[in-house]
Amino acid sequence: MIDFDKLYAKDTPPAAVAWSGFPRFNMVGGHNDPEMVPVDLLIESAQRALKAEGKKLATYNMDHGALGHAGLRAFLASRLKSHRGINCGPNDVLVTTGSMQGMELVNDLLLNPGDTVVMEQLSYAGAISGVKRRGCNVVGVPVDDDGMRADLLDETLAKLIKAGTKPKFVYMIPTIQNPTGTVMSVARRQAILDACAKHDVLIVEDECYSDLLFEGEWPHAIHAMKGGEQVIHIGSFSKSISPALRLGYVTTQNPVLQKIVALKRDGGTPSIPQMIVADFCERHFSSHVKAMQKTLGHKRDVMKEALEAEFGTDAELTVPKGGIFFWLKLPEQVDTAVLLAECQKEGLSFNSGREWSTDPETAKHSLRLCFALPDEATIKAGVHKLAEVCHRLTGIPRHGSNVPRG
Amino acid sequence: MIDFDKLYAKDTPPAAVAWSGFPRFNMVGGHNDPEMVPVDLLIESAQRALKAEGKKLATYNMDHGALGHAGLRAFLASRLKSHRGINCGPNDVLVTTGSMQGMELVNDLLLNPGDTVVMEQLSYAGAISGVKRRGCNVVGVPVDDDGMRADLLDETLAKLIKAGTKPKFVYMIPTIQNPTGTVMSVARRQAILDACAKHDVLIVEDECYSDLLFEGEWPHAIHAMKGGEQVIHIGSFSKSISPALRLGYVTTQNPVLQKIVALKRDGGTPSIPQMIVADFCERHFSSHVKAMQKTLGHKRDVMKEALEAEFGTDAELTVPKGGIFFWLKLPEQVDTAVLLAECQKEGLSFNSGREWSTDPETAKHSLRLCFALPDEATIKAGVHKLAEVCHRLTGIPRHGSNVPRG
Repeated sequence: MIDFDKLYAKDTPPAAVAWSGFPRFNMVGGHNDPEMVPVDLLIESAQRALKAEGKKLATYNMDHGALGHAGLRAFLASRLKSHRGINCGPNDVLVTTGSMQGMELVNDLLLNPGDTVVMEQLSYAGAISGVKRRGCNVVGVPVDDDGMRADLLDETLAKLIKAGTKPKFVYMIPTIQNPTGTVMSVARRQAILDACAKHDVLIVEDECYSDLLFEGEWPHAIHAMKGGEQVIHIGSFSKSISPALRLGYVTTQNPVLQKIVALKRDGGTPSIPQMIVADFCERHFSSHVKAMQKTLGHKRDVMKEALEAEFGTDAELTVPKGGIFFWLKLPEQVDTAVLLAECQKEGLSFNSGREWSTDPETAKHSLRLCFALPDEATIKAGVHKLAEVCHRLTGIPRHGSNVPRG
Repeated sequence: MIDFDKLYAKDTPPAAVAWSGFPRFNMVGGHNDPEMVPVDLLIESAQRALKAEGKKLATYNMDHGALGHAGLRAFLASRLKSHRGINCGPNDVLVTTGSMQGMELVNDLLLNPGDTVVMEQLSYAGAISGVKRRGCNVVGVPVDDDGMRADLLDETLAKLIKAGTKPKFVYMIPTIQNPTGTVMSVARRQAILDACAKHDVLIVEDECYSDLLFEGEWPHAIHAMKGGEQVIHIGSFSKSISPALRLGYVTTQNPVLQKIVALKRDGGTPSIPQMIVADFCERHFSSHVKAMQKTLGHKRDVMKEALEAEFGTDAELTVPKGGIFFWLKLPEQVDTAVLLAECQKEGLSFNSGREWSTDPETAKHSLRLCFALPDEATIKAGVHKLAEVCHRLTGIPRHGSNVPRG
């Protein structure tokens, strides 16, 4: 008999827990609104695309090459131009199996164990853990309502370089920051770009939420700005259409992109989703995204009202300008990991703060709530449940709707 | 300006070459027959599946958990039972994004740099390179018409263990071996299992071609045999339906499978292909596979006749009992890497031998030809072109159709 415990590679994670279905109040992760999946239009696109190109499924990459479906790349190049200001052609775009794969490929391209990556101090948990898992260091730069602080980035880079540690890149989420929901101004983008240029450090920008801006103009991507030509730009259809599609993309200057392609050893991103989404996007992406913005903007308002009513001044929250999350800062005495464990017993789930920070303990009293999946009633009931369990556990919130709790 | 050459991680491969389309005589890789893609049935399945489950695309893994689509896993459990003899339930099957991902996950689970893996001396290039890329060693065991030699496996394991190197696992392709096309007998499977049990070494069996057996009975998978409970079994829909689906699977005892799940950090295998294939398989998989066997069996015969006519006794070939490949051994003076370079200039491509061997130089005069993609006329013309270029370059084949060449 094989003793597997002796056979496993070093540092493998513990076995996954068997799936037991979603909790009733599901505000964890980045799920989206089931009612907004354009099912009928996807069926039409599936029919049309499979009819036109179905036979190509017999070949790896549909004879379109490792960059992915040519029609989808043409759509992306055009959309990146019109909405993100990026000047690129279809051959400058790599379709990936989710933007997470794009990030992994960038890490594969650039990181050796011991390397350092700079990020927003509050950032995507998957980005932080993806870098740390490689034996690399993550250094956080504080954020404000405009995203990563450019002055502190400059300081951080100077300090690191002076100490002999030149970071491999700065990873950031300028448009609808995860988890804080802020949208970086053009001026701040320029200041970030200047700081990185000064220290000769690469930027990797993750704009996977950028389609879901509810208000205001889309600021150009950093990659689109003068001096941003070398930036690696990552995007996704997970938020704009569906996370279960697993379709993302990477664009950057072509020689670097082709290095990334060489690292993509997966036999190609699955073709059926690419065919369907290429057909769908050409016809319906703009109108679909507008409908998403409206629906999600409304759900954000519902959650905002519920949070204000239930937590009053005991929760500090930035109202997100887009996306699908609220980031809540509760008083110091609340440990959201403890709170989460208690909430899960009552069918409520969310993301506790530590994993969303490069300096976990500074975010231990914060949490992230996704408002896209639950319907209005569930958002309200979920926030009420959260406040109830939190109050029971910690005495916070002290007031509900400004009425003292019992 | 960033100097990327200084920024890249160690040992990254050179940039990919821009895609320029398939060669005219395309016998490289594992493409399949475009005419055999069940396009109309897939369209019907897409309609039905998206109508029934489309809204679930809003959630990661469709609320089916990280193992993948529940219906697809139920189909796989039933098919693995009926055709491979494997006793497993839907929760013992992990759907992967191609069997290649399954192999990578197994490597993630088991391999540290410096580890050793034992394989058939002739094996899948991706398996060999996947292990070597991790800084691990590959040790080959010679094959015969019945697959890996069990006596030599026993010897190899004994020798390695005596020298203090216990291999992490034996990777093998028992049913329709890649590249040789042999099908391992039940007796040999038992002998392989016994050798591994004797030395307490894990088996990873890759049965990605097993659905495409043209003749004879399906021998049970090694995982299905008494004493094979710990074997990790990998399979795929790439050969039976379409490689561009990127759908494969892994099954093994549940605690080990859940360790593999924990390493699958990709946000889930794309859902649309899973939904469609689940619906398709339940209704049509058996009849579709029978049609594939017939068509590919015929194409095999066409290529066999063409090879015999063009190469006569100058090519040593094992007629494959299934699958999509011929493995050709040419006289020692033919270097198939040189031959390939010359053929590519004339629109012909195939896999040269070195990459398909754990001891590359022993296979330098061999090559692999895929007969699934080209139509009959192209198979004949392609084999003719191959013989023509080879003769021009090396004087081999000396005879065409037993008629001396000019």
